[in-house]
Amino acid sequence: MGKDYVVGIDIGGQSSKLGVVDARGEVLAQSVVKALNVTDADVVIKELAEAVIKLVAQAGKHGQIRGIGVGAPNGNYYTGSIAFAPNLPWASKCSVEFAKKLSEAIGGIPVALTNDANAAAVGEMTYGVAKGMKHFIMITLGTGVGSGIVIDGKVVYGSDGFAGELGHNCAVRHNGRLCGCGKTGCLEAYCSAIGVARTAREWLEGSDEPSLLRDVQNITSKDVYDAAKEGDKLAIRVFNFTGRILGEKLADFVQFSAPEAIVLFGGLARSKEFIYEPTLKAMNDNLLPLWKGKVKLLFSQLKESDAAILGASALAWEL
Amino acid sequence: MGKDYVVGIDIGGQSSKLGVVDARGEVLAQSVVKALNVTDADVVIKELAEAVIKLVAQAGKHGQIRGIGVGAPNGNYYTGSIAFAPNLPWASKCSVEFAKKLSEAIGGIPVALTNDANAAAVGEMTYGVAKGMKHFIMITLGTGVGSGIVIDGKVVYGSDGFAGELGHNCAVRHNGRLCGCGKTGCLEAYCSAIGVARTAREWLEGSDEPSLLRDVQNITSKDVYDAAKEGDKLAIRVFNFTGRILGEKLADFVQFSAPEAIVLFGGLARSKEFIYEPTLKAMNDNLLPLWKGKVKLLFSQLKESDAAILGASALAWEL
Repeated sequence: MGKDYVVGIDIGGQSSKLGVVDARGEVLAQSVVKALNVTDADVVIKELAEAVIKLVAQAGKHGQIRGIGVGAPNGNYYTGSIAFAPNLPWASKCSVEFAKKLSEAIGGIPVALTNDANAAAVGEMTYGVAKGMKHFIMITLGTGVGSGIVIDGKVVYGSDGFAGELGHNCAVRHNGRLCGCGKTGCLEAYCSAIGVARTAREWLEGSDEPSLLRDVQNITSKDVYDAAKEGDKLAIRVFNFTGRILGEKLADFVQFSAPEAIVLFGGLARSKEFIYEPTLKAMNDNLLPLWKGKVKLLFSQLKESDAAILGASALAWEL
Repeated sequence: MGKDYVVGIDIGGQSSKLGVVDARGEVLAQSVVKALNVTDADVVIKELAEAVIKLVAQAGKHGQIRGIGVGAPNGNYYTGSIAFAPNLPWASKCSVEFAKKLSEAIGGIPVALTNDANAAAVGEMTYGVAKGMKHFIMITLGTGVGSGIVIDGKVVYGSDGFAGELGHNCAVRHNGRLCGCGKTGCLEAYCSAIGVARTAREWLEGSDEPSLLRDVQNITSKDVYDAAKEGDKLAIRVFNFTGRILGEKLADFVQFSAPEAIVLFGGLARSKEFIYEPTLKAMNDNLLPLWKGKVKLLFSQLKESDAAILGASALAWEL
């Protein structure tokens, strides 16, 4: 029997998702493990290993798993470790040799690990809109802004495994917003879900302009999207502003690695109808003539519920 | 007899430099061909081919040349062409199949071509301060600002061969200076030799502060350096300002590809004593904690007169 299947694991602060995946990107079986509030990594790894074994049995693929791919916050491809990840209590204050330990706990099946955004990039390249592309940049617009850079068909890990922190490149140099990382003006402070909500709240406070959002408590980016759908002018302008800042930085990224495409993924990418035009315009306005109008701006087509598992699983094909 | 030597050619608007180089990076013989003011590329190529043949004979290495490496403005590694290079009258309005034609004119010796900054990066990796490094970014601070990016030991050319135009990434977003490329606020508009001179002129006009530079007509970056050497406060502040802008952008670049080092080269890099500290400080101030203090800021050690030839020649070892 060939080893024609892989397992993808997406590690999150609230829960981790697991899936058994075939070569065409079909998720044959999946499950969710709720995060244990423990600081002992070995407990977490043991529980995940048991969940993997159970899921593989359930899919009827025992003995047919080629490898396991893991996407995790602060996951390092070179070392296989998860280190100082603020949202994981078992890896927030230390470095955990995750790949090695998980492999040992599952009878030696090889495990590859990287961060979420890199996993998403591998997923798009293997199963998604970047299939067949050798040069693209994945930007994940979620709670934060992550990135996975592909050059010559390979994810860029850099000298230390941490390449591709484009969410913390500077978007607003002077009087920029404080970012969660401690710096100011980061792209993430403007173009994440939190950034969008913050822009809306700041603008509401700074004017008397009528807006549907004035009735909303604790505005989220979803609320801004819903208001924009209703034709709310302020909400639409929030997306224009967000797109402009994103597009300006995308131009910088294009001038670095000359990709065929930028691929957007994550919660904010679902607001495509509002964010596509301003982002594309700002990107082209800030590109050298040789690239103007030539770089594609794509949105991930992977089903949101499967995407994280697929991305992680795709890593395992390279094992 | 082995083919143990290469030829490097650095194509410039005023003149082109040629050299025969050995594997240790010794330039055995070199010559200069003054640019012909012609629009016919074939004439230029014929003259260069003759100069190469003459130089190889002079070095006594006939039949021992492995290949020829060429660094040229707007040179494209993939296509071997020089296209729309404003400073080359024979390639300013068209695309010239330079590598193919030169190879034909020299009896089939293989020719590799890239732009000047990429050639400089290969030169540093082969003979210079980046020897043995797999991940670094070369920034050339000359009349303009160029860049050559090395990831996993290879120059990044991107999907089209034009990757690495970091001089045209945006350094000053609002009310930025007009750059020669037509955009505003580009790094090149501030951190090139021309940018430094411009900063000095603007500051002199905008204040009554005494400065040695007030006696200078048509200030150049060399004048600013000379004044700084004399302790001129305004001139020193010009370098502080230039270094800050450069360092801020270097942080963005580091967060893209996580290099071991940034290597500075070119006229402005000779002002190391004034530009090193502010550049390094601004870079570290703008990096995520994981990179602070860890990325080296190096200055090219190659002899200026040889560096362009060495850089171009290094390409030929890969043929």
